[in-house]
Amino acid sequence: MISLGHGSGGKLTWDLINKISKKFESVQLTDSALLANKIAFTTDSFVVHPLFFSGGDIGKLSVCGTINDLSVMGAKPLYLSCGLIIEEGFEEEKLQSIIDSMAKTAKEAGVKVVTGDTKVVEKGKADGIFINTSGIGSLTSYEPKKIEVGDEVIINGEIGQHAIAIMTSRFDLDFEIESDCAPLNGLISSLPLNEVKFMRDPTRGGIAATLNEAVEDVGIEIYEEKIPVSEEVRAVCELLGFDPLYLANEGKVVVIARDGEEIVRAMRKHPLGKKAEIIGKVTEDKGRVFLRSLSGGRRIVDMPIADQLPRIC
Amino acid sequence: MISLGHGSGGKLTWDLINKISKKFESVQLTDSALLANKIAFTTDSFVVHPLFFSGGDIGKLSVCGTINDLSVMGAKPLYLSCGLIIEEGFEEEKLQSIIDSMAKTAKEAGVKVVTGDTKVVEKGKADGIFINTSGIGSLTSYEPKKIEVGDEVIINGEIGQHAIAIMTSRFDLDFEIESDCAPLNGLISSLPLNEVKFMRDPTRGGIAATLNEAVEDVGIEIYEEKIPVSEEVRAVCELLGFDPLYLANEGKVVVIARDGEEIVRAMRKHPLGKKAEIIGKVTEDKGRVFLRSLSGGRRIVDMPIADQLPRIC
Repeated sequence: MISLGHGSGGKLTWDLINKISKKFESVQLTDSALLANKIAFTTDSFVVHPLFFSGGDIGKLSVCGTINDLSVMGAKPLYLSCGLIIEEGFEEEKLQSIIDSMAKTAKEAGVKVVTGDTKVVEKGKADGIFINTSGIGSLTSYEPKKIEVGDEVIINGEIGQHAIAIMTSRFDLDFEIESDCAPLNGLISSLPLNEVKFMRDPTRGGIAATLNEAVEDVGIEIYEEKIPVSEEVRAVCELLGFDPLYLANEGKVVVIARDGEEIVRAMRKHPLGKKAEIIGKVTEDKGRVFLRSLSGGRRIVDMPIADQLPRIC
Repeated sequence: MISLGHGSGGKLTWDLINKISKKFESVQLTDSALLANKIAFTTDSFVVHPLFFSGGDIGKLSVCGTINDLSVMGAKPLYLSCGLIIEEGFEEEKLQSIIDSMAKTAKEAGVKVVTGDTKVVEKGKADGIFINTSGIGSLTSYEPKKIEVGDEVIINGEIGQHAIAIMTSRFDLDFEIESDCAPLNGLISSLPLNEVKFMRDPTRGGIAATLNEAVEDVGIEIYEEKIPVSEEVRAVCELLGFDPLYLANEGKVVVIARDGEEIVRAMRKHPLGKKAEIIGKVTEDKGRVFLRSLSGGRRIVDMPIADQLPRIC
């Protein structure tokens, strides 16, 4: 029986995806597939609820998400598709507003929406609108490299903004928190990519999931005091008992490089990297992510099993 | 307000798509977009109900549909993505069976599923499973050519099988009718493509929609007695008042060429073209499709406004 946890980006999702991908012998378990002729190809469906939230909407999100999946593979995003599944009775003004938002975001990011499809299902058989965007990019010279002990872990800004923005919009909470939803292709192409060993956008499952995906032959230790978290996100997390490490982001990239300072310097020159920080280092604790807390303690950061919050993207 | 008719493939769909595509300045209103480097790119979401039907299931359909959209653009389908939106509580055995079916169909058609995404929504917020497949193909030397008066219209076999199979499965009617759901890349690549002026797969809206899309500067007359319709489909149509011309197909291609005989000969050598026929000719009735009936009468075949049957694919 499929549960909400199977869509969480955590361990249940990985188990399901592993089962599915065994059937597709050729599937690549990365954000984008790398194909012949230096092409990268990716797909993402968006079921975010609510459709309109502080800092964005499903349209903007669907364009950013696919651009970011291509960008972290070192590809230059070029073309997007737009597949709509609309619930009967959906207001046409909302649809127009979502499409406007997709068009605006794509244009600003220098990406073209070139093909589309529209399906309509009966009232009660969907939830307003679901959007699939698939994307094609051209591979740059970037290649992931072997992560080694002593490498540094960098992030381009405050974490948890997207998840908390969705939550406050969904439950009408009285906080002023905007999603970080943004296309990362500009920021990423401004980095010294030959210095970058690993890049990933920490969406569902947050940086906890991303860092756990990065550690196979090594470990990672992150420092609580260095991880950028806004006052507002921290406040909501304390109030509701969420851990920011597990919260989804939609405009963040985790980078691992030998010289973290060089990456931070490059990031801070870009509007989306002003609050970049070195947040941790690669250690010998094979397969493990640890958090060094403010009080000096050290605790394991596990791969999330299921979601803190479903339908975040 | 979005209605089921907006997803029908008829006039309402075209109106909506035209509105949307104006926002996406770069969108191409064909089955696939033709990109730089001889690449074709297409997307299709599948919301068929029921998920399992006589002759196929949503998995097989989702692979065939996207392969066919690429094939009719003269592209050789190479890579597919698979985006799943699953309703909480969906049986894992059904999911496995659908994925098996996708994998089998892709393998048989020589196409690779290379990237995927899985989302789960709460019970009651979707209808079992929706699948988006996007596809990449490499363009062949085929190019559509100007349709001229005297050209012939060919189809590779019996029409209406898919729509009637869905209907009999949906309403548990006691007819033995199988969907024609099949990947057309093999058949199409076996045709003398330099002789082909126009190719389109008549899915939603049936051959009525496809032929109306073909006539801009010319007209088309089709001959009722030449259009292949199985006994069973004809019987259901008479019983329920459907017109086979408007029924969806998932393994058919309409071809327009100067020498219809040559196309029919080539088609009949392929398992999917055994019942190929010349069904009509291009006339001077600019912008109009006519049906010459068995009794010798002549009636207009209009672009369908909305669906005969929603959620056919």
